[in-house]
Amino acid sequence: MPSALDRNQLYSFAKSHRKEYETLLKTFVETATVSSDPAHAEDIRAGVDLTVDTFRQFGGKVDVYKADRGNPTVHAIFDSAKNAPTVTVYNHMDVQPASKETEPWDTEPFVMTTKGDSYFGRGTTDDKGPALAALYGARAAQEAGVPINIRFLWEFEEEIGSPNFEKIISKNARDLQTNSVVVSDTVWVSRDRPASSAGLRGLLGFILSLETGATDTHSGETGGASRNPIAELMRLVCDLYDPVTGKIKFKGFYDDVIPPSKSELNDWVNSGFTVKGFKKAHHLKLMRSEDQLEVMKRIWGMPTMEIHGVVGGYQGPGVKSIVPPRAEVKASFRLVPGQDPEKIKKQLLAAIKERNPDVKVQFESAAPAFRTVLTGPLPQALKRAIKFAFGREAVFVRDGGTIGAMTSIEKVLRCPVLFLGLSLPEHGYHAPNENFDWQQASGGMVAFAKYFEEIANLPKND
Amino acid sequence: MPSALDRNQLYSFAKSHRKEYETLLKTFVETATVSSDPAHAEDIRAGVDLTVDTFRQFGGKVDVYKADRGNPTVHAIFDSAKNAPTVTVYNHMDVQPASKETEPWDTEPFVMTTKGDSYFGRGTTDDKGPALAALYGARAAQEAGVPINIRFLWEFEEEIGSPNFEKIISKNARDLQTNSVVVSDTVWVSRDRPASSAGLRGLLGFILSLETGATDTHSGETGGASRNPIAELMRLVCDLYDPVTGKIKFKGFYDDVIPPSKSELNDWVNSGFTVKGFKKAHHLKLMRSEDQLEVMKRIWGMPTMEIHGVVGGYQGPGVKSIVPPRAEVKASFRLVPGQDPEKIKKQLLAAIKERNPDVKVQFESAAPAFRTVLTGPLPQALKRAIKFAFGREAVFVRDGGTIGAMTSIEKVLRCPVLFLGLSLPEHGYHAPNENFDWQQASGGMVAFAKYFEEIANLPKND
Repeated sequence: MPSALDRNQLYSFAKSHRKEYETLLKTFVETATVSSDPAHAEDIRAGVDLTVDTFRQFGGKVDVYKADRGNPTVHAIFDSAKNAPTVTVYNHMDVQPASKETEPWDTEPFVMTTKGDSYFGRGTTDDKGPALAALYGARAAQEAGVPINIRFLWEFEEEIGSPNFEKIISKNARDLQTNSVVVSDTVWVSRDRPASSAGLRGLLGFILSLETGATDTHSGETGGASRNPIAELMRLVCDLYDPVTGKIKFKGFYDDVIPPSKSELNDWVNSGFTVKGFKKAHHLKLMRSEDQLEVMKRIWGMPTMEIHGVVGGYQGPGVKSIVPPRAEVKASFRLVPGQDPEKIKKQLLAAIKERNPDVKVQFESAAPAFRTVLTGPLPQALKRAIKFAFGREAVFVRDGGTIGAMTSIEKVLRCPVLFLGLSLPEHGYHAPNENFDWQQASGGMVAFAKYFEEIANLPKND
Repeated sequence: MPSALDRNQLYSFAKSHRKEYETLLKTFVETATVSSDPAHAEDIRAGVDLTVDTFRQFGGKVDVYKADRGNPTVHAIFDSAKNAPTVTVYNHMDVQPASKETEPWDTEPFVMTTKGDSYFGRGTTDDKGPALAALYGARAAQEAGVPINIRFLWEFEEEIGSPNFEKIISKNARDLQTNSVVVSDTVWVSRDRPASSAGLRGLLGFILSLETGATDTHSGETGGASRNPIAELMRLVCDLYDPVTGKIKFKGFYDDVIPPSKSELNDWVNSGFTVKGFKKAHHLKLMRSEDQLEVMKRIWGMPTMEIHGVVGGYQGPGVKSIVPPRAEVKASFRLVPGQDPEKIKKQLLAAIKERNPDVKVQFESAAPAFRTVLTGPLPQALKRAIKFAFGREAVFVRDGGTIGAMTSIEKVLRCPVLFLGLSLPEHGYHAPNENFDWQQASGGMVAFAKYFEEIANLPKND
């Protein structure tokens, strides 16, 4: 057994690879792997090629797994010994859309701009920066001779709800056998306190559409007799939930919700979460509540319905007095443990049929909520690695976001899934001016290297 | 007194000027005089210059009236004799916005495309085609020696509710003195039956906006605690009116409505209006009612609230799970006789303050409803001219649209205002594929020439 990893040496490793890391991150960020927009199909292909090349340059054996449709998933094997434990690092290399035309980006979203220790650009923190930090952590562990088999599983459809991921890993389950999975795609509560997510919310995206005509009409000529599809969709939305309180109104929605336990709530209260910090990080001006526990319950422990956008009608300067012929509302639910997306789909369809049967519903990505293991050797190893790298004890919190792939991994690979997230609230997940920084990147390299060693040192239980 | 105008000769006049009319209409249509969009300021200036040049080429004495702000109004004088009666023809030369990118235009909106007898392009029917038909009608009357003083008053801010028109005509009221005004900016009920509008609905445009943050946030990270401005505006809209029934809910809105009289309703029923024709003309698939009288009541006799568009959030492919920081709803009321826009503004502000005080309201164009005279020599002269040109008796109906300038004309110039509209439902006012046609243009030339003669022949009452 090699001597234990040294913290200073690992940070020196990080420092000496900083330029290389930044150059590689820039290359990945500037490959605009937007999975939701077919116009970026070529970028996705380029991103897959870049991933394969990168893994090979790091010395990995690479497999590209394809489903019948959709984007591939790349698996890279960095094995050191047959009897060593295997750990698989999951990340996703696709990103959210971004546009400087319609969103307030200070820099070009698909050009990585470095300002001091910060890296700006779409995908820097979600999830390319953390992915590459984990990759350098693996290199550090391997160069130090840590006896562990490290695998990487990088997906390209996470941002659209991983529609093909479960099929892909099911088909290749044998090659993907692993003792555990670690995911680096979640956000700390604050920079001062490392946090590991013990749960995620699920997601059910959907588009409501209504067509009442074939062309814009003059509201003077038809208004009153014509049906206004934007306005009717507004009414339907308000029939489905109350946008002011956030309460979902249709039958059955809350039936299966498992609320957070008292002990979980207690952990959250002690997590260092502050409403002030949360508002600042997300640039919020007005909130539904400013009570600390109530806010955490709302973002981590309770489901939500959100309206993301309305397509249709006039959006230019001033008012153009038309009645549009069709409209579309883009919406989603975030779900919590206990809620089954398939059951919610049926309840939603029934509610819409009852309230406005002319409205069509198209479902988008669906994933149930996820809860991880909180006890046993792995969570303890993770906590030690995080404390080693960042100098402070990690707290187990939750993340209100969704990684659909998590449920699939647990189901297909039948192993524990833990989170070693590196992102901070101020990094702006899914937002304009998304960024990552060197503190979190270098700390991430050290934490991953140490976590690999911790796993290598765990007593074998087979 | 010259011999009475001959119908065949007038139609020959029209025919021999067809090419000239079409060329001139093309020039006007291809000057994109969009008054609601500051980006078209240069086009407005070009449209004013074109108007001045055109009137001069027709032999008119031209004045360009400017207000402190906004677009000018052009007045052209074609006087034949000091003792002859004066009639002023009002039209507007600004147009609605149009975009082939976002609307289903088959042709370029600002290129006039002739297909058979039809002219496609923004402004062909609203209101450049009818305006130029009236101008050729005046030339025909003058060439035939009809003793009448004809004036033209062409506005460039009608589509934004004529915000400066009343100031302009008040300032120049002396020069604008006239015995009556005739307006050609309304729509027949069907091609088979000429119709003159006896009333218009008013308009009150407004924009609701709400800002709850500074940037898009990830609905997983903030959803539940953050306020969703699009959704809250939806709720406010539904608090203000019921988008399904169309019923406005806030206090006082219907208080001053003067419903159409029984005899008016009787005229409407006999106007040749059919729900089938209305649906076809406006390409409507679904309506609030398919009952003939109910539909006419809804579009001519009752006010309406409409949502024209929602700005904010995500509108690309699929669903992007963000909570937007701000949103804007573009809306308006069409008002009916009795309703005072200023009073409605106050009622609306009170309702919004009570329901969602964080929402800001910006009012756009405002104009009360308008009713014309239905009895006396002028309406009779108008009916005779229309029958002469189109071969059928005209009916007096209403138009659900708004021409804000009408109330100003009546108030400032203190004279009767009548309507000699030439547009048809299938011409698509404010819609993609707006068009006008030669039948209506040539009939319009004849009808205007005859109306000028009819007025010249009326006994003097001073």
